Amino acid sequence: MTSIIGREIKLEDGAPKVQGQLKFGSDLVLHGQLYARLVTSPHAHALVTAIDTTGATKLEGVHSVITAVDLPDIAPASRSMLLLAKDRVRFVGHPVALVLAESEAIAQDAADQVLVNYEPQPHVTGLEATLALNAAPVWPEGLPGASAEAAAHGAVGGGDSGGAEASPNVAGDSTFERGNLEQGFAEADHIIECTYRTAGVHQSYIEPHATLVEIGPTGDEATVWTATQGTFFVRDAVAAVLSMEASSVRVVGTPVGGGFGAKFCLYEPLLALAAKVSGRPVSMTMNRMEEMITATPAPATRVKVKLGAKRTGEMTALDAELVMDCGCFPGSMSILGPMLMGSNYQCPNQRVQGVEVLTNSPSTGAYRAPAAPQCAFAIESAIDEMARALDLDPLEFRAANASKPGDKMAMGNPWPVMGLVEVLDAMRNHPMWRDREQARAQGRGIGIAIGGWPGGIEPAAAACSLQGDGVLQIQISSVDLTGTRTTFQQIAAETFGIEPDQIRIISGDTQSGPFAGSTGGSKITYTVGPAIMEAVAEVKQQVLELASGVLEADAEDLEIKDGAVQVKGAPQSAIPLAKLARKTMSYGSTHKPLYGQGRNAQPGQAPGFCGQLAEVSVDQDTGEVTVHKLLLIQDVGKAINPLLVRGQMQGGAMQGLGWALYEELSTNEDGQTVTATLSDYALPHIAHLPTEFVMETVEVPAPTGPFGAKGVGEPPVIATAAAVANAVADAVGARVRSLPLSPPRVLAAGREN
Amino acid sequence: MTSIIGREIKLEDGAPKVQGQLKFGSDLVLHGQLYARLVTSPHAHALVTAIDTTGATKLEGVHSVITAVDLPDIAPASRSMLLLAKDRVRFVGHPVALVLAESEAIAQDAADQVLVNYEPQPHVTGLEATLALNAAPVWPEGLPGASAEAAAHGAVGGGDSGGAEASPNVAGDSTFERGNLEQGFAEADHIIECTYRTAGVHQSYIEPHATLVEIGPTGDEATVWTATQGTFFVRDAVAAVLSMEASSVRVVGTPVGGGFGAKFCLYEPLLALAAKVSGRPVSMTMNRMEEMITATPAPATRVKVKLGAKRTGEMTALDAELVMDCGCFPGSMSILGPMLMGSNYQCPNQRVQGVEVLTNSPSTGAYRAPAAPQCAFAIESAIDEMARALDLDPLEFRAANASKPGDKMAMGNPWPVMGLVEVLDAMRNHPMWRDREQARAQGRGIGIAIGGWPGGIEPAAAACSLQGDGVLQIQISSVDLTGTRTTFQQIAAETFGIEPDQIRIISGDTQSGPFAGSTGGSKITYTVGPAIMEAVAEVKQQVLELASGVLEADAEDLEIKDGAVQVKGAPQSAIPLAKLARKTMSYGSTHKPLYGQGRNAQPGQAPGFCGQLAEVSVDQDTGEVTVHKLLLIQDVGKAINPLLVRGQMQGGAMQGLGWALYEELSTNEDGQTVTATLSDYALPHIAHLPTEFVMETVEVPAPTGPFGAKGVGEPPVIATAAAVANAVADAVGARVRSLPLSPPRVLAAGREN
Repeated sequence: MTSIIGREIKLEDGAPKVQGQLKFGSDLVLHGQLYARLVTSPHAHALVTAIDTTGATKLEGVHSVITAVDLPDIAPASRSMLLLAKDRVRFVGHPVALVLAESEAIAQDAADQVLVNYEPQPHVTGLEATLALNAAPVWPEGLPGASAEAAAHGAVGGGDSGGAEASPNVAGDSTFERGNLEQGFAEADHIIECTYRTAGVHQSYIEPHATLVEIGPTGDEATVWTATQGTFFVRDAVAAVLSMEASSVRVVGTPVGGGFGAKFCLYEPLLALAAKVSGRPVSMTMNRMEEMITATPAPATRVKVKLGAKRTGEMTALDAELVMDCGCFPGSMSILGPMLMGSNYQCPNQRVQGVEVLTNSPSTGAYRAPAAPQCAFAIESAIDEMARALDLDPLEFRAANASKPGDKMAMGNPWPVMGLVEVLDAMRNHPMWRDREQARAQGRGIGIAIGGWPGGIEPAAAACSLQGDGVLQIQISSVDLTGTRTTFQQIAAETFGIEPDQIRIISGDTQSGPFAGSTGGSKITYTVGPAIMEAVAEVKQQVLELASGVLEADAEDLEIKDGAVQVKGAPQSAIPLAKLARKTMSYGSTHKPLYGQGRNAQPGQAPGFCGQLAEVSVDQDTGEVTVHKLLLIQDVGKAINPLLVRGQMQGGAMQGLGWALYEELSTNEDGQTVTATLSDYALPHIAHLPTEFVMETVEVPAPTGPFGAKGVGEPPVIATAAAVANAVADAVGARVRSLPLSPPRVLAAGREN
Repeated sequence: MTSIIGREIKLEDGAPKVQGQLKFGSDLVLHGQLYARLVTSPHAHALVTAIDTTGATKLEGVHSVITAVDLPDIAPASRSMLLLAKDRVRFVGHPVALVLAESEAIAQDAADQVLVNYEPQPHVTGLEATLALNAAPVWPEGLPGASAEAAAHGAVGGGDSGGAEASPNVAGDSTFERGNLEQGFAEADHIIECTYRTAGVHQSYIEPHATLVEIGPTGDEATVWTATQGTFFVRDAVAAVLSMEASSVRVVGTPVGGGFGAKFCLYEPLLALAAKVSGRPVSMTMNRMEEMITATPAPATRVKVKLGAKRTGEMTALDAELVMDCGCFPGSMSILGPMLMGSNYQCPNQRVQGVEVLTNSPSTGAYRAPAAPQCAFAIESAIDEMARALDLDPLEFRAANASKPGDKMAMGNPWPVMGLVEVLDAMRNHPMWRDREQARAQGRGIGIAIGGWPGGIEPAAAACSLQGDGVLQIQISSVDLTGTRTTFQQIAAETFGIEPDQIRIISGDTQSGPFAGSTGGSKITYTVGPAIMEAVAEVKQQVLELASGVLEADAEDLEIKDGAVQVKGAPQSAIPLAKLARKTMSYGSTHKPLYGQGRNAQPGQAPGFCGQLAEVSVDQDTGEVTVHKLLLIQDVGKAINPLLVRGQMQGGAMQGLGWALYEELSTNEDGQTVTATLSDYALPHIAHLPTEFVMETVEVPAPTGPFGAKGVGEPPVIATAAAVANAVADAVGARVRSLPLSPPRVLAAGREN
């Protein structure tokens, strides 16, 4: 048997997915279930003075219309706890009522007949407007969960206020400093001071949110089927609103048709309460417009960067401030931004700051490498501007300042093992970079950028058992977003010594499965993989010991080969695994079940870096950018399944092209999202695929990763926009400092040149 | 905290059960499911020459009518593999077709319209008739799974044939001999030679069989929800007919509303095929008449006993032959009978034989202590007859010959630790026995008998995790028939050091749960309990180690108290278990999940003995027997929950009263069951409860049982009928040698006197 690690195996659920056989959340129908539809606010900020449900409830097939008075009084301390508006709506799309009916169509008809009386209030939209000291407060009565003072006045000074006084809508600020900024800028030969902006971007998963909730017949237990990245996360949220013990709530993760950070918990608590209030199972599948206006996209940002460097290529000072428009709830991502801006390069004097501001807009959330594409766009653009100003090679300028393991991150803690230098080395040697002058000669622009993701950790456990048919069954609780089940088949198969198709991965619900953290932060292979290896190794040892007794040979003299245990090199002694397993599963047997477990808690993160090179041309008449070539070189630790790894890289970069060139959530002055359909919101599509789209990997093993593997999902989305922006600047000789690089912006920049 | 072992706690699912909140199999409804009804044979033996489904399929709401031609060609090697009759029916109730329709009522209407053309064949019913050499063969073409010769001629000579030639319907024979029978009888001062008969008896669970099967959308996996005692057993059977890997079939055990051995696997394979053929989920709930005529009751038996003993009370020879009318399939219980007849007493010269014969009747199956009530009725009656003939005290006669640990069982293997002598000692000292002459003085009869059950073993595993709300969750796969979940809460709570209501027992399905054997043979507490203890102890150690780090104290200096870990004797140091658990379940945590496992395979059985004393009066005019007092004294090893133990004892003895006095499955000469409703079949009811119904326990610990516990479910049903029969003989001075002791039989015996 050749090694299974490194083998290219197709997704184990790929065929049923593309053939339409997999049951997603919206395919589930429970006997007697009700269908729910939302009534949402058309106002960005208003008082709710009356709700008339008479007409709606009279419709045949309508079960009930639920409003805030039907629900427990729960503080809306986060988006998923917002439930239904009590007396005030804070964004267009804010849920006001929930209609329950015998069919989805009836529920929608009835939702249209719920009459809500609104009294509009002053509102604020847009990052610049909300930073003003006199901005209308999003939470005039105070942000739930924050101290009243902090909520009313902003936690700290930030944004344009420049001091102790701040906009009422500043909700969070994290700043990390080191060295002496003034001195650093004084030592610089050149200083770049620019402001970069990125648009709000939607995750645009194919599958909308779909949830089904059933309250058990005794009323003290609940089952939630939902398309979530974090079943235990949903469990705790639902248990909280139902006032149940967390372990009384069973969350079954349905296959996720795209999550990208947006599917943690949204309407599950509301639907759980609806099921409790109605006494019937309740199902809701969002439609696309609801996804666009009420779900949790990536925030629009503004990044001010002041960067100083010596002519020799040494960075001397960095002052960077990220402001994120978080919509009506803070996202607690203000720490991530400074870390992402101030860690990849070693600059002795720096201040990196992340500020969260609120507006009367849908709350934002995580989107694949949250905050990283925005920060990379700013920092990697500024570095390129500096290199250009000092006439330095942009790759060598980066390499000269690149962080290495042991160097300090923004917060002062040391980088663990990581491969930024190796990625830059591989880029330097790649023909696409080496031959860049040929491309330029054709009028094309070349841009590079790097993106780094720190990686996540969260404890995880696994169980393993050998079944009576010889199948090795692995039980875990992590949600499979990116093909981890297939990867785990390979990890288990290699550890045990059988083929991957003899491995069955069971993704348990929160009651039947051992704990695993949410699927997010590029950590599932890294954290669950070792738990699986430990569980499998334990069962392997049990199997060898059982066979040892049967074959009358030392366990160390045995091997697993071709689905059987044999004395090493003696196939005539082979006992099939199935036969051994059945010895432990029969009446009267005195052999213990073949059952093992693994528990893992990683001691630290395994950061992943992805360098990108874009080769573009710009239509001088229209400003349209064409990406001809896109190269990704990523440190993946170890590519357990290179096919899936390249798939992650390609998918990430395609989304990166969306950030770079197309995607922009736009809101009008009334707070209405004007890009609320996929006709109005521009996603990249297959015609935008670069002609040459090259994915390459380097392998700097993660010391505690399974076979050295580290997370690969997040890194490839980060640097694309910056690489394309740098390539556009290279092509047209002028800089576009706002994403997306839409034709008008590119044309305008070209005109400045 | 006082010890939880020995505490009387009510069934954890008792309230939802009696309040109608628990969902049984027939409560489950899947979207789009079909309802199935059977078409069964009205003939005891016939060729099926044509099936006309035209009328049935024309009915609105009928999906299809499935017959043998729609199914794969599977040899009917057991009752559950019988599926649908191909060309021959072998008993009244033999399934011929299965109607699938949108409702149960429509399916039943359509089933009534399926026209089947039968060509009747010679048939045989009744044990004596089928033993005849010229009996019509039940399997003229040979018993599937047996060699053709064995099938056609009987495996060995047996029954009335007395030699090499045997009835064609003898299907199995097991004989164990020791010593010299002839010499033994020669040494006897007295010889008893009698024939005892018991009627066929139905398990009469409240809940009928209910099964729901869904084939997964990809067609290569199936889920079966069914009221079964053995989920893995069903899994293997269903996988076999669907030609799937066993691990592709997920069996979810629904709450069992009474099993008593009858709910292992019956129509699950047929319904799985129906779901596959129809492409829809299929559900079937049997009605009471189908249960009575097509399910698997306990066999009618005839036991010939020849017993020799010395005047001093020493048994010298035992020759016992048990013949069981197994219906149309052998039950492989022929070994059990000899073991039960020839082990409880030490007789130097003995031959014990079990013979299975077939008839054109529904196949029989297991019923609580299969074969044991029948064997005990014969042996314990014969012993009583001997004691009476030799004027020996029946208790002392038993005690003089009673087996002790290490003594030989019928097959020659030694008895493990068991408490027959302790049970007899306790009976000897009990007032009901001591004061028996007072009862006699009132014209009542006193009878005693003992029943022993060897106990079963089968490997089992368990998983344990501490949840974020402080609940200790135990995952097992055994089906709870008798309250084992509540018992396991106590075992886990005692092991961990928390209260039982903080323990949640999850009974997993065959995919999510670790392996456990079927629930049968009084073995679940004995086999699964230690696995739970091991898993809990592992988690406890993990918890103490985690707390050790937090409290900066050695793990050995810590204790778990009031739901928290504290330094011994220092409650101010306490950290709640929930808080510790959450440390292992959060983003960024470096603490491993609190997750443990246990694996158990018992090295041997833990036999349980139950002695019974009945005090009866007999109405001289009607022959009606009234049981005034019934005493059970049972060795339970350790009563983990005395309330549940007494419940098992009481339930068993009530069923024993059914055997003794009321229950009899009767068939007419056409093979029609004439006791096919609960109006015609006499179950004991609450008015039959003895006025004094006393359950007492002795505790001879099982060396490897959890806290010394052994199985308690089977022993209490075994001796009741014999004790009542002995009491009736004591009362009327004449012996009834056939069960049930119906008034006509008692009257007739009285007249003989």
